[in-house]
Amino acid sequence: MKINASIIGATGYTGLELVRLLHLHPNVEISSIVSRSNDNVSIQSLYPSLNAIPPISFEQLDIEKIAAKSDVVFSALPHKASMEIISQLNNFSVKIIDLSADFRFSNIETYEKFYCEHICKDISANAVYGLPEVFRDKIKDAKVIANPGCYPTSAILALYPILKEKIKISPNIIVDSKSGVTGAGRNPSLKTLFTEVYDNFSAYSVGKHRHQPEIEEKLTEIYNSPLKVTFTPHLLPINRGILSTLYIDTLDDSLSSDKLSQLYIDTYKNDYFVKIMPKGETPSTAYVKASNFCFIGFLYIPESKKLIVVSVIDNIVKGASGQAIQNMNILFGLPEHTGLTAIPTFL
Amino acid sequence: MKINASIIGATGYTGLELVRLLHLHPNVEISSIVSRSNDNVSIQSLYPSLNAIPPISFEQLDIEKIAAKSDVVFSALPHKASMEIISQLNNFSVKIIDLSADFRFSNIETYEKFYCEHICKDISANAVYGLPEVFRDKIKDAKVIANPGCYPTSAILALYPILKEKIKISPNIIVDSKSGVTGAGRNPSLKTLFTEVYDNFSAYSVGKHRHQPEIEEKLTEIYNSPLKVTFTPHLLPINRGILSTLYIDTLDDSLSSDKLSQLYIDTYKNDYFVKIMPKGETPSTAYVKASNFCFIGFLYIPESKKLIVVSVIDNIVKGASGQAIQNMNILFGLPEHTGLTAIPTFL
Amino acid sequence: MKINASIIGATGYTGLELVRLLHLHPNVEISSIVSRSNDNVSIQSLYPSLNAIPPISFEQLDIEKIAAKSDVVFSALPHKASMEIISQLNNFSVKIIDLSADFRFSNIETYEKFYCEHICKDISANAVYGLPEVFRDKIKDAKVIANPGCYPTSAILALYPILKEKIKISPNIIVDSKSGVTGAGRNPSLKTLFTEVYDNFSAYSVGKHRHQPEIEEKLTEIYNSPLKVTFTPHLLPINRGILSTLYIDTLDDSLSSDKLSQLYIDTYKNDYFVKIMPKGETPSTAYVKASNFCFIGFLYIPESKKLIVVSVIDNIVKGASGQAIQNMNILFGLPEHTGLTAIPTFL
Amino acid sequence: MKINASIIGATGYTGLELVRLLHLHPNVEISSIVSRSNDNVSIQSLYPSLNAIPPISFEQLDIEKIAAKSDVVFSALPHKASMEIISQLNNFSVKIIDLSADFRFSNIETYEKFYCEHICKDISANAVYGLPEVFRDKIKDAKVIANPGCYPTSAILALYPILKEKIKISPNIIVDSKSGVTGAGRNPSLKTLFTEVYDNFSAYSVGKHRHQPEIEEKLTEIYNSPLKVTFTPHLLPINRGILSTLYIDTLDDSLSSDKLSQLYIDTYKNDYFVKIMPKGETPSTAYVKASNFCFIGFLYIPESKKLIVVSVIDNIVKGASGQAIQNMNILFGLPEHTGLTAIPTFL
Repeated sequence: MKINASIIGATGYTGLELVRLLHLHPNVEISSIVSRSNDNVSIQSLYPSLNAIPPISFEQLDIEKIAAKSDVVFSALPHKASMEIISQLNNFSVKIIDLSADFRFSNIETYEKFYCEHICKDISANAVYGLPEVFRDKIKDAKVIANPGCYPTSAILALYPILKEKIKISPNIIVDSKSGVTGAGRNPSLKTLFTEVYDNFSAYSVGKHRHQPEIEEKLTEIYNSPLKVTFTPHLLPINRGILSTLYIDTLDDSLSSDKLSQLYIDTYKNDYFVKIMPKGETPSTAYVKASNFCFIGFLYIPESKKLIVVSVIDNIVKGASGQAIQNMNILFGLPEHTGLTAIPTFL
Repeated sequence: MKINASIIGATGYTGLELVRLLHLHPNVEISSIVSRSNDNVSIQSLYPSLNAIPPISFEQLDIEKIAAKSDVVFSALPHKASMEIISQLNNFSVKIIDLSADFRFSNIETYEKFYCEHICKDISANAVYGLPEVFRDKIKDAKVIANPGCYPTSAILALYPILKEKIKISPNIIVDSKSGVTGAGRNPSLKTLFTEVYDNFSAYSVGKHRHQPEIEEKLTEIYNSPLKVTFTPHLLPINRGILSTLYIDTLDDSLSSDKLSQLYIDTYKNDYFVKIMPKGETPSTAYVKASNFCFIGFLYIPESKKLIVVSVIDNIVKGASGQAIQNMNILFGLPEHTGLTAIPTFL
Repeated sequence: MKINASIIGATGYTGLELVRLLHLHPNVEISSIVSRSNDNVSIQSLYPSLNAIPPISFEQLDIEKIAAKSDVVFSALPHKASMEIISQLNNFSVKIIDLSADFRFSNIETYEKFYCEHICKDISANAVYGLPEVFRDKIKDAKVIANPGCYPTSAILALYPILKEKIKISPNIIVDSKSGVTGAGRNPSLKTLFTEVYDNFSAYSVGKHRHQPEIEEKLTEIYNSPLKVTFTPHLLPINRGILSTLYIDTLDDSLSSDKLSQLYIDTYKNDYFVKIMPKGETPSTAYVKASNFCFIGFLYIPESKKLIVVSVIDNIVKGASGQAIQNMNILFGLPEHTGLTAIPTFL
Repeated sequence: MKINASIIGATGYTGLELVRLLHLHPNVEISSIVSRSNDNVSIQSLYPSLNAIPPISFEQLDIEKIAAKSDVVFSALPHKASMEIISQLNNFSVKIIDLSADFRFSNIETYEKFYCEHICKDISANAVYGLPEVFRDKIKDAKVIANPGCYPTSAILALYPILKEKIKISPNIIVDSKSGVTGAGRNPSLKTLFTEVYDNFSAYSVGKHRHQPEIEEKLTEIYNSPLKVTFTPHLLPINRGILSTLYIDTLDDSLSSDKLSQLYIDTYKNDYFVKIMPKGETPSTAYVKASNFCFIGFLYIPESKKLIVVSVIDNIVKGASGQAIQNMNILFGLPEHTGLTAIPTFL
């Protein structure tokens, strides 16, 4: 099978990762890459590392032309810009995988509160939240896939076994997350200058990050009962990686480390990309560097019935471009890990 | 006034910082530095950066001699080794500031559970926990001062206004801390090799770090009511700095951001080293780099009555050597910031 | 074709990279990994990132057994230990690729001066220096391949077009190299502790690094005329990557930037892994991160006839394990880039 | 003595360092800080770390007012902007220390070739190049001091003993320099984004950096005979520090390591800030971090008569703001190290 794939908004780091990974995907042909600002130059002029492969030139956006030569289109545009394009693309038979937040919310009011007015609510209503380990069955028939946020991916995978099993927990969950700087994109800003981030560490957007409502909505949907999330993102002075530390008050007297360990292992036993740490051990971001894997470890404290879960992903692979390709594989009936077998580089 | 100061166990990073700071202290003469393993060489042979000052040679340990020529002795030895020396030193009239954990615990059973058998419980019973902002009054008359752990310093200062004011809170507090690598000392180990830590981030000792009982005991003493701490330390790929993110469930309906802001400002209004961030802003570790300052910011969420507090210190200055000198200043009636006025380097 | 490959001394970073890359090589089966110190545990216990693939257990060293089940053996042992094993392995029909320095020198006296007594000079006499871009023809028939050092790889590739073309140059060449810390291996030492390397930069082994005679011998052999190298290695606070800046005094009045540009492009036009930068541009180590590529740029200054060449490689891929696999591909008649097509990760 | 000091262009990192260091200088009162873009806000709003000291507000530029209340004015403006202000300031009796390149060149044509048209050549003709270890005698009577560039400071101090002693050398000198990112300033740009610099290393402006003519002119003046410099700057993924590696071909048969060692020690024996490494050892940037020191080491190779010199400075202290204060001390007859005694932080 050959899949013709296009990427719109390919100049940022998620665009780079899409090109890097799709180029070696055995079933994919990159049919076009589109940039509003870099018409006619090659992506190699932005990323000399891509000289490892033949030149690919940016094209101007021509929806009809893109649709005609693509089986799937990845949109790596910012929110708002993305739905403007997708509202047009959706008229064609092409599959759409959107890496922005535009189609992630079931509750469109939440979206509009935290982002902006939504211009194609009908598309949003039919879009599927593309977290394969949880929503695989819906993904395979989707027309538009909303690729999850990086923080939500790390948080939801960490909690999914608990929620799926309907373990009784307090509805207040703390998600203390730490992310590498690639998550902030490639636009120059004072806050992400080398000198301001290096040898430094900080929390940011405390109490007001837009991934908080996304996490909350998805956890609630999976648990089928309201859950509240206190979410604190931090900026790590590294490039790739998110580590999320979650604190859950369990309310089930029958829980134990052994039982939880079994639950985590069982839940993910058929998932290629999720690995459970041995009991009492927690993972490092290096364990997943430059790969689509997610490692999860936990500690259960019987006296307080507190559960501490630690998950790690590479924010621009499993948290963005890799997961998008995983979704593409599902859409086209390929094994989920096709083209995504790169082993974490560790160093 | 001239204070003759000696340092025992001066080869590690806290030793380096003590020498670096004491050398420029206007009232201090470094009378001797002692190392069990580096007899007769100069500290400059370990730290060429100290060639900025005249050579200081390590001496062999001779308790009587040290005591005779010192007004104050800093012990930067590991726990156990420290109390072995201090049990002897205590027979002399010299003041003692211990940077190990040996004299930090009021409850000696807690110490023995988490560390080892205690060999001089009477000294411990009279030692004072050297956190000046909280225990200043007791410090000034102490014979032996137990310099606090780095994580406890960051956690207690973050919570002190709440506890002192007896704000009603849930007794379960979450302390999610992130520390630079200098906290792990200078002994070569796989876990602190550059290659293993760089471009990486991890939690460690989850649920079993020895600073957890220290934090718990001190918070409980200050609040005068039992408090439980869930403590998760993480290893940051930076040298200096601790950022602690604390999550507290408050139970007082009259709280507000304004009220808390005032409380934090009032509590620390006479403290040279503690700075409160504007409402809703949180600090970065760079704000305190290479200084004895502590910056604190918080976010109060009225809907959930959750309080998130973020504090930063330099773990080897305010979290160790700088605080030890602050304690010395109190002991000798000097202004607390004498010799500690260095402004954070930021970069 | 299926190649059975074994790795001896697989616990260090070059061992990790060999496993990481060989596991995905379409023609390779890893038949055994051997460690003197980690018998019976899996390599996953050392590198949890390898949990991305099925467990592989270390075996004890049994030369006969290894030889029986291998078509090729990679030795990632330190020098001396390596030739002790290879002197035995060489009695079997297996191909041998040695990542140590033991078989790199044509002049065995140079080896013995800089390393130690050589115990199998006959094997060394027949070993081939495994730099494919230069010695491809000899490599394909070799029994024992001496995989080049990381610094020599970066220096020789930078100069090869000049030497091959016999451009007249002064016989004194300056090689100012900067390497990431993975080159120092995984044994804990003070010099490679995170705290000592981070936010720091230094030269080391100035005037006495053992790669200097290796570079000098190979440059001289290629140029067929004596060349002297002044070599200064520096330690970069990063994990992967070597950037070498070379200074050459050319003596040919007909040289020009254009001519040199054409020469570099022509020399490497059939080499998959070598990329030449546009005139006047020089590469960054990020351009080759986690890949087997080498990027080269240069500046020619007509007034002084100085030539400055800058080359970058990933020291543990093209500078070690990746190049070893490239050599294996040549030995077995496969396209050189088989299994090595990973695109640099850039971030 | 009390010196009233003003800083114009105080929003960048050199401005931060001037405030940080001058605030603690025992003889200085900061009388005003001026910013074209931040009128009426405090410098603390840009650098929260400065909350360690009382607020200082930016003022609008009013030359007359500044002159009236200042004994000395530091200009931390970019080149061109700086001479525009200084051409006016020079009419008042205030001393002027300019951190830009505007007054560094003896040969104004060189300036105009590499920078822009010069608008006050007469002032430039009387300005003194403020490298105290070399030009101390001229500095003390200057009206306008041109504070040296960071790279030139590291290169000139490394060579000064050789030049001063008129050791015979080849006129072609190679200066291979590596600098931390603070040297690039605080304006957001793609090239200095964290993600683009971290875990990366590159050369830049190869063959065309504007510090090359500055180094060349000063070396030539000191040696009183033409010298040519091949200068290659590199960008280190660290904040503070320059390490320069210099390669000199000596032509004097009587040279030896011992003789050179004595020469370096003798040359700098009265210089507080210059430290010579033991024979054969070279310094790390950590040895001078956040201080005004310069450490120099060298290796002499008798066979080739090559001399390799390695020098380190903190680029924003000895390479900018610290050296500016050192110049101020000389101007006002204070001991050179007044207010600059901070010991390198090493970590």
